[in-house]
Amino acid sequence: MSSTTSPAHTDAPQARALFRAGLATPTAGWAPGRAQANLIAVPADWAYDVLLFCQRNPKPCPVLDVTDAGAWHTPLAEGADLRTDLPRYRVWERGELADEPTDATAYWRRDLVSFLIGCSFTFEAALTEAGVPMRHVEQGRNVSMYVTDRQCRPAERLHGPLVVSMRPVPAALVETATRCSALLPAVHGAPVHAGDPARLGITDLSRPDFGDPVEMRPGDVPVFWACGVTPQAAVMASRPPFALTHAPGQMFLTDVADSHYRIG
Amino acid sequence: MSSTTSPAHTDAPQARALFRAGLATPTAGWAPGRAQANLIAVPADWAYDVLLFCQRNPKPCPVLDVTDAGAWHTPLAEGADLRTDLPRYRVWERGELADEPTDATAYWRRDLVSFLIGCSFTFEAALTEAGVPMRHVEQGRNVSMYVTDRQCRPAERLHGPLVVSMRPVPAALVETATRCSALLPAVHGAPVHAGDPARLGITDLSRPDFGDPVEMRPGDVPVFWACGVTPQAAVMASRPPFALTHAPGQMFLTDVADSHYRIG
Repeated sequence: MSSTTSPAHTDAPQARALFRAGLATPTAGWAPGRAQANLIAVPADWAYDVLLFCQRNPKPCPVLDVTDAGAWHTPLAEGADLRTDLPRYRVWERGELADEPTDATAYWRRDLVSFLIGCSFTFEAALTEAGVPMRHVEQGRNVSMYVTDRQCRPAERLHGPLVVSMRPVPAALVETATRCSALLPAVHGAPVHAGDPARLGITDLSRPDFGDPVEMRPGDVPVFWACGVTPQAAVMASRPPFALTHAPGQMFLTDVADSHYRIG
Repeated sequence: MSSTTSPAHTDAPQARALFRAGLATPTAGWAPGRAQANLIAVPADWAYDVLLFCQRNPKPCPVLDVTDAGAWHTPLAEGADLRTDLPRYRVWERGELADEPTDATAYWRRDLVSFLIGCSFTFEAALTEAGVPMRHVEQGRNVSMYVTDRQCRPAERLHGPLVVSMRPVPAALVETATRCSALLPAVHGAPVHAGDPARLGITDLSRPDFGDPVEMRPGDVPVFWACGVTPQAAVMASRPPFALTHAPGQMFLTDVADSHYRIG
């Protein structure tokens, strides 16, 4: 990253321009106060399956926008180009990872429908504001994510497990964390579980399926939220002929204020 | 209605059984505490258009459930039959009202996808609980509904105007009404406007497009919420070959508690 670039002092359009120019970096901490989004794009023939899957599983898959087929623009970010403006993409063929380009133009199709899905970075800002420590940020790590033993409600040809992110929360603050995130249903809402990892079929917190292990501090309780990686897990499980997603942690930066998604 | 039938003392499964047996009546006040839903069913070929229209217009069209093609059951109501369990239906052919049967079995198709959409009856209960008077209930009338000059965001072949319901609210309670309904995003959420009908292109409050005129009391402000009749207005405007809906005010009674849709 250029020494003149400070993520926290870069606004969303500037950040998208840097990513368009080739910068590939995790987007945590970039353009603070602006909502970031998960991307999943599929051929039009699969669009109903994805949209219905999201409707039936709104906690892991809260839809912020859906493009028309072939379109690379979205009202969430004036002038943005979904083909180029994410730091890094993942290309999936029949559920297998085929490429991780920083520019998706070569893979773009005229029948591609893009889904932008809410991201937990938005509720992390609200939790931090409410005094809930973010252990993974303190430890300079990506959040821990786990594939659970709960299946999402299937939709047409799409099925897969619920993926959750875990944040250690001091026991006295679990209620605050729950209340704050419940007011943000467009970005995963309230936790799906707090306390016992085994209830979600998670056997070892120190070995996440995605992201980094994060250390618990004494008195911390593991709190689990539905995670926007769930659609990628559904792609892996359901093997559509083609899909394009963001690379984990390297999100699409919208111009929409986080506060827009807060209720009440 | 039989003299042994008291709507307020009938639970949702009992009410559905009465409607299945042929009783046709507005459902306001039936099975209190249980969410009621708007129905719109279209051929599978139009399902993506409807689901995307709802996703892009979540305030008027909050989706509570979508069935598989041809299915008449829903997890929102154990044992219910969507073909028979609404008091009265409307059958639409190319956007024109073709029939209003009390049983839709003869019109059912194997490719029919049913959408159940949140209904303002749920937030009316919350407003009443918070001390906001419901003038239309006091006056024994249906709520007033108006076609506005705002167009919904179109989706594929589906387009149409935003329809709103209006409730007169004492000026001092407008903030309470706004806050209470904002906590119910699955049933239309916060008002779209309070105050000036002309801002929505409404010229005469005493002549609603649907429902009954409702009298304002001194000091009342007209408050407008997005309305679940919006999908019917889209059917009229967009003229799909076939659609089946509930008749206005004669809703589908689910087993889900109103409180399930309340956030925070």
